[in-house]
Amino acid sequence: MTTMMTVEDVKAARRVIAGRVHRTPLVRSTALGVRVGAPLFLKLENLQKTGSFKPRGVLTKIASLSAEQRERGLVTASAGNHAQALAWAAQTEGLACTVVMPESAPASKLAATRGYGAQVVLEPSIMNVIRRAQELAETDGLTYVPPFDDPAIVAGQGTVGLEILEDLPDVGTVVVGIGGGGLIAGVALAVKSLSPEVKVIGVEPEGAASMYLSRQAGHPVRLDKVQTIADGLAAPFAGEVTFPYVQQYVDDLVLVTDDQIRRAMGLLLERGKLLAEPAGAAALAALLEGLAVPRPEAPVVAIVSGGNVDVARLASLLAEAPA
Amino acid sequence: MTTMMTVEDVKAARRVIAGRVHRTPLVRSTALGVRVGAPLFLKLENLQKTGSFKPRGVLTKIASLSAEQRERGLVTASAGNHAQALAWAAQTEGLACTVVMPESAPASKLAATRGYGAQVVLEPSIMNVIRRAQELAETDGLTYVPPFDDPAIVAGQGTVGLEILEDLPDVGTVVVGIGGGGLIAGVALAVKSLSPEVKVIGVEPEGAASMYLSRQAGHPVRLDKVQTIADGLAAPFAGEVTFPYVQQYVDDLVLVTDDQIRRAMGLLLERGKLLAEPAGAAALAALLEGLAVPRPEAPVVAIVSGGNVDVARLASLLAEAPA
Repeated sequence: MTTMMTVEDVKAARRVIAGRVHRTPLVRSTALGVRVGAPLFLKLENLQKTGSFKPRGVLTKIASLSAEQRERGLVTASAGNHAQALAWAAQTEGLACTVVMPESAPASKLAATRGYGAQVVLEPSIMNVIRRAQELAETDGLTYVPPFDDPAIVAGQGTVGLEILEDLPDVGTVVVGIGGGGLIAGVALAVKSLSPEVKVIGVEPEGAASMYLSRQAGHPVRLDKVQTIADGLAAPFAGEVTFPYVQQYVDDLVLVTDDQIRRAMGLLLERGKLLAEPAGAAALAALLEGLAVPRPEAPVVAIVSGGNVDVARLASLLAEAPA
Repeated sequence: MTTMMTVEDVKAARRVIAGRVHRTPLVRSTALGVRVGAPLFLKLENLQKTGSFKPRGVLTKIASLSAEQRERGLVTASAGNHAQALAWAAQTEGLACTVVMPESAPASKLAATRGYGAQVVLEPSIMNVIRRAQELAETDGLTYVPPFDDPAIVAGQGTVGLEILEDLPDVGTVVVGIGGGGLIAGVALAVKSLSPEVKVIGVEPEGAASMYLSRQAGHPVRLDKVQTIADGLAAPFAGEVTFPYVQQYVDDLVLVTDDQIRRAMGLLLERGKLLAEPAGAAALAALLEGLAVPRPEAPVVAIVSGGNVDVARLASLLAEAPA
């Protein structure tokens, strides 16, 4: 039996992280809005520190730890944005940090994480990275910081929702990509609590539809495998913590294909002048393809959740995009 | 004998364009700031309507025309951002618009300009496009709208400077790319009038150093040829109108190479998550290379003036960039 948080927890997180992360811009894109058929705004978390929204949750989580938990050092498992955000946050707090990564992780991600001063532990199997991090927490006494399935993480990510409402009080719809559900849980909690009439739509890749299938099942489910270019959304399970918020606050869940994500990335770059990683373009993709249907005659916000993609990979991603 | 404008003219332009163009974000880039050695902010005119700062000047100019001048229709010569801005502005005002372009202009630029409803006239020689546009103004009675060498254009572009001062009152240095000088003339006029202690630095490509050589000569000079990847800065002459503002208000002029521009474009994309055209990356290039030297211990702003670059060309530009 879990107690659900309220928007007051998100507001408290906001006070914790104020001045330590960017209050990212919410920009209007007329050219892309024409294709969506509604006034379209983009929340630019790709311009956030470390290139994704993740520092919001991580800083909130670290602030919730005891002095002893902090001093023992932090550990997590991630090949992506969570790793960089935790390593960065630990460095700014002067804390030790260990990140378990799969041996298949791109060299650039290892370098970025080490660049923030974290110790990287490589694990042969991607399926075991979380278990390995939890083992390190037990054997070495490190404090485990999960990527999404934690109330403090959810509250921190929810600050994105507070900023959207402040900058665009007449927003009608907010569209959010879903990996494990940390971002959408927090954003939906904040937005629906303050403006119940706003429609919140979640977007998952077809090849990593853990939240979509969890909603069908009525409880969080685990996928046997995931297959998507959107590595930032490739969580193989919906969170035990995040799922109830999605159930209570999210109006609709839709699925996008990798090709649809590629097209959205290309349009965001060419027309929007913005670099998104595949996960960061998923919400826009659902709008461009007519899969996410905004409330009529009201502005719609797509959260561009991150921009961490190798420029070399970018070229091949765009080359494969169908016209 | 020309009368110089004052910052009041820029403020008047601001009232004209308010609500019709984006008030673009000024974002901090920590990652790029480390390389520059100063707190670095980017003024994102690549997110402006039509993908560059140009609509600011064009709307100001159109507002200064008589009803009769407007109704005769507008004409200009441009293969780039000015063409798209004028075509867009004419469309929103319900005015006819003719744009003379060289036959060598990329198909995408023709399509974009026609997409805004303008009539495109092709001219075999790039050296003759301005003359052809002026002929059309005389023979067909169209109203010629120059790309930069006009007080109303300068005043409109200067609104970028007002926004920078409002968003970052303690700014120490502003760095601006120079083509014909419309943007830097307006920005320097606004910034120096309101905050004389701010350092304003102009940046030109080595292969199109018209303003740099004009300052050496003490009067506007014309180049026999220009050679740069930064087509947005490839004006073959410094403006008669713009030059006096550069002389009076700009502290320093520096030159960058095409390779330095390519590197800045790549870093802006990879670390900043932002797409700039070569002209839009020139100011940042000068900072990254240590050529533009900011005032110590104060924030520096690089204006990212535009983002209109074909994604296909982008790939080849980045592939040629030295590490």
